[in-house]
Amino acid sequence: MTYCVAVCLNSGLVFCSDSRTNAGVDMISAYSKMHVFDCMADRLFVVLTAGNLATTQSIIHRLRHDIQENAPRNLQTFSRMVDAAQYVGEISREEQGRAQSMVAGTPIDTSATLIFGGQIRGGEPTNYLIYSAGNFINCSDHAPYLQIGESKYGKPILDRILTRDIPLADAARCAIVSMDSTIRANATVGPPVEVLVYERDTFSADHHVILQEDDSYLRAIKQAWNEKIKQAFVELPPFDWEQRGAQTC
Amino acid sequence: MTYCVAVCLNSGLVFCSDSRTNAGVDMISAYSKMHVFDCMADRLFVVLTAGNLATTQSIIHRLRHDIQENAPRNLQTFSRMVDAAQYVGEISREEQGRAQSMVAGTPIDTSATLIFGGQIRGGEPTNYLIYSAGNFINCSDHAPYLQIGESKYGKPILDRILTRDIPLADAARCAIVSMDSTIRANATVGPPVEVLVYERDTFSADHHVILQEDDSYLRAIKQAWNEKIKQAFVELPPFDWEQRGAQTC
Repeated sequence: MTYCVAVCLNSGLVFCSDSRTNAGVDMISAYSKMHVFDCMADRLFVVLTAGNLATTQSIIHRLRHDIQENAPRNLQTFSRMVDAAQYVGEISREEQGRAQSMVAGTPIDTSATLIFGGQIRGGEPTNYLIYSAGNFINCSDHAPYLQIGESKYGKPILDRILTRDIPLADAARCAIVSMDSTIRANATVGPPVEVLVYERDTFSADHHVILQEDDSYLRAIKQAWNEKIKQAFVELPPFDWEQRGAQTC
Repeated sequence: MTYCVAVCLNSGLVFCSDSRTNAGVDMISAYSKMHVFDCMADRLFVVLTAGNLATTQSIIHRLRHDIQENAPRNLQTFSRMVDAAQYVGEISREEQGRAQSMVAGTPIDTSATLIFGGQIRGGEPTNYLIYSAGNFINCSDHAPYLQIGESKYGKPILDRILTRDIPLADAARCAIVSMDSTIRANATVGPPVEVLVYERDTFSADHHVILQEDDSYLRAIKQAWNEKIKQAFVELPPFDWEQRGAQTC
């Protein structure tokens, strides 16, 4: 399983991914699911991947190969994010088709789901959720985040905190808490946790951190959050019957 | 869909349930999923229900009918909670079997899952999760809560807050926040929200509230929680690069 989340803010983009891979309950390993394309002066892209690892690796290889070979269509050639998303969706579909033909007759699932985000000079920073069919949706003002993989445990905190106008670093911390909730609940989602914070119009991935399980910042966030949550509970309004009890004493 | 949660504390039990029923995306209605058996001096039971409404209603009818008819085995005759849970599991299995035979050849799912909790004088307050097969597990010190229905959205807050020794009212507020997170995320879980707080050795359901969508206490809890969560975020430790930024200015 996998959990990845991407947030689209007025001031930029935030990406967060876990790194655990598994085949059933064993073959546990760690692979990065965050793929950064930041060697171009006028654009930056990030791809988050969920699904069959062989398929997602072949998709990323294709995207990089097309750039290196100066293919007629590659991530350097588009002037709009939506056209780049269309291209990534096509590559994803082709590579899934190739993988499916190789495992025909077996129950192996070779599908892949992606989040594709970034910015091209002259346009807005944007994120897309690219379904396994290759079609896609973008984030919106009402839904500033997109998730792939095991999305349910980490959703409530995103809904309560995220708006388009909060600071990038707050959104990154929100993504880390969302990731921590998921890691606690699902054994197939695990560290290291990767976080990339992209400031709009910079076209570079300045803030890209890989937090190991024992990372001091990850531990500090988890501990502080647990303490603050517990404190918040103590301060919630009492039930009527608690007040009645207090008056009786 | 449904969401119900039951918490087992040193000082008693907490039950919380939504009330939305649906058939597909329509036929939305509201039925209580919390069934209280509190007319006996030496015992109290609560049953929370998820699954096919006709099946769960027939299970509850059977439990009440067996009491009224003084059946050889009914909820008044057991001296241990585990024996009562065994009986409820058998009734559930029988009623599901009856329902399944009536819909044979159709794709209708007539299964039901229950939480059965309470206390019998001389024993500890306890909760059981009764699977559709009729077998069951009890809560434990490590896992003081049990959930049925749409459990994922509401799980992280339970994991962060609940221990066996927190006050009953805090656990009830935690269950309400867990319910609110689920209602926000899943359209087939909805108000009114029912909360029952049972103080051990009282054998009565003194604190049983039904919170409508516009209930002032439910609104106060939701608003206070959202504000405190946002405040907590502001106070989380900064990234290294935020501190570097501050020093540069």
